[in-house]
Amino acid sequence: MQLYAIIVAGGIGKRMGTDIPKQFLELDGKPVLMHSISRFIEYNKNIEIITVLPEDQIVYWQELRKKYSFSVPHIVVKGGETRFFSVKNGLAFINSPGLVAVHDGVRPNVSIDTINRCFETARRLGNAIPVITPSDTIRMVTGDDSQLIDRQKIRLVQTPQVFDAELLIKAYNQNSRPDFTDDASVVESYGTKIHLVKGNRENIKITNPGDLQVSEALKSGAK
Amino acid sequence: MQLYAIIVAGGIGKRMGTDIPKQFLELDGKPVLMHSISRFIEYNKNIEIITVLPEDQIVYWQELRKKYSFSVPHIVVKGGETRFFSVKNGLAFINSPGLVAVHDGVRPNVSIDTINRCFETARRLGNAIPVITPSDTIRMVTGDDSQLIDRQKIRLVQTPQVFDAELLIKAYNQNSRPDFTDDASVVESYGTKIHLVKGNRENIKITNPGDLQVSEALKSGAK
Repeated sequence: MQLYAIIVAGGIGKRMGTDIPKQFLELDGKPVLMHSISRFIEYNKNIEIITVLPEDQIVYWQELRKKYSFSVPHIVVKGGETRFFSVKNGLAFINSPGLVAVHDGVRPNVSIDTINRCFETARRLGNAIPVITPSDTIRMVTGDDSQLIDRQKIRLVQTPQVFDAELLIKAYNQNSRPDFTDDASVVESYGTKIHLVKGNRENIKITNPGDLQVSEALKSGAK
Repeated sequence: MQLYAIIVAGGIGKRMGTDIPKQFLELDGKPVLMHSISRFIEYNKNIEIITVLPEDQIVYWQELRKKYSFSVPHIVVKGGETRFFSVKNGLAFINSPGLVAVHDGVRPNVSIDTINRCFETARRLGNAIPVITPSDTIRMVTGDDSQLIDRQKIRLVQTPQVFDAELLIKAYNQNSRPDFTDDASVVESYGTKIHLVKGNRENIKITNPGDLQVSEALKSGAK
């Protein structure tokens, strides 16, 4: 069965307070995005990798590939207006049945075990997404008020989110909606039950200035 | 107005896969608990600090104070069966009106700004707890199923949680309940509205093996 990984890196570097988009920031000697891509080839050397990048970053990425002698083969596809359209652009390159992982380019610390759990469950059940239970107390805000929520019922959702290719492509033929915050929400709104598997705590998304140092510290833990 | 900080360190070191309770693990040259205590004296040098420790760790703690020449004055109180009873033991040493911060001994990266926001809001409104909005997609599990939750409505709750001393003491005169996962839940069940203020993302609780390295990396960011 053909395996695919669509690595979506849409960041334009505003949120980090830097000129460099966060997927290109250097972590442990190479850009964050190279770590994210490498994890999938470490999982399975025959996986087909599709990297989605904003159009104006593609030339820079090709330069980085040379500079770092980054030899993992992957297709580079230009991104869309939003994450939804970026994933959709990536899906256009899926040309045979199989399983598709969609992964945030800024999650370099995903463990091989997490990737494996997602693919194995998706193989059996059609889809799987990695989640962790929060270690903090959780509250929910309603208007000016807030109430305690049983944290054992809450899951923080990570990527890769893995789906049967045909299912994912069909789901992405819907119109985009503001509540599509990840791929599971797109597939779920299409009427499919989503299956949760265990993620890994180190698999954080680099969205804040402090995250890069955290990520550096966590890299060893995730191996 | 008198300020108090009850620093609760109940960990017995099982969850970390180590013999050393996590509050004593070394971070940036000194035990985690010393960092947590120091943050409060950095915020206000007149704050009265009450540290709650399991009874069988108190002698070891006194040795660590000598070994590290840790000179921040604080009362050491023996803990109870659960966090609830540990806080209650600490509250027995509050002997004048004022504001009480209850802080996890294993949150060494709380920022001075967070401490300040909590005390300032509690001064005006009677209580305040620090929260952050999660950066991941959130789902809620119900039985065998799960559903997407708008993450903008979810808050991850941190400490210090600050309360009017009289209010907190009264609330802790209730019987303990399993859903008392933090101090706010105790005070809230007593019928008081809880006020949320912004925490800081680095203010993580050290509960997992990887957290110590993360914490190390985050220390600089939290200053």
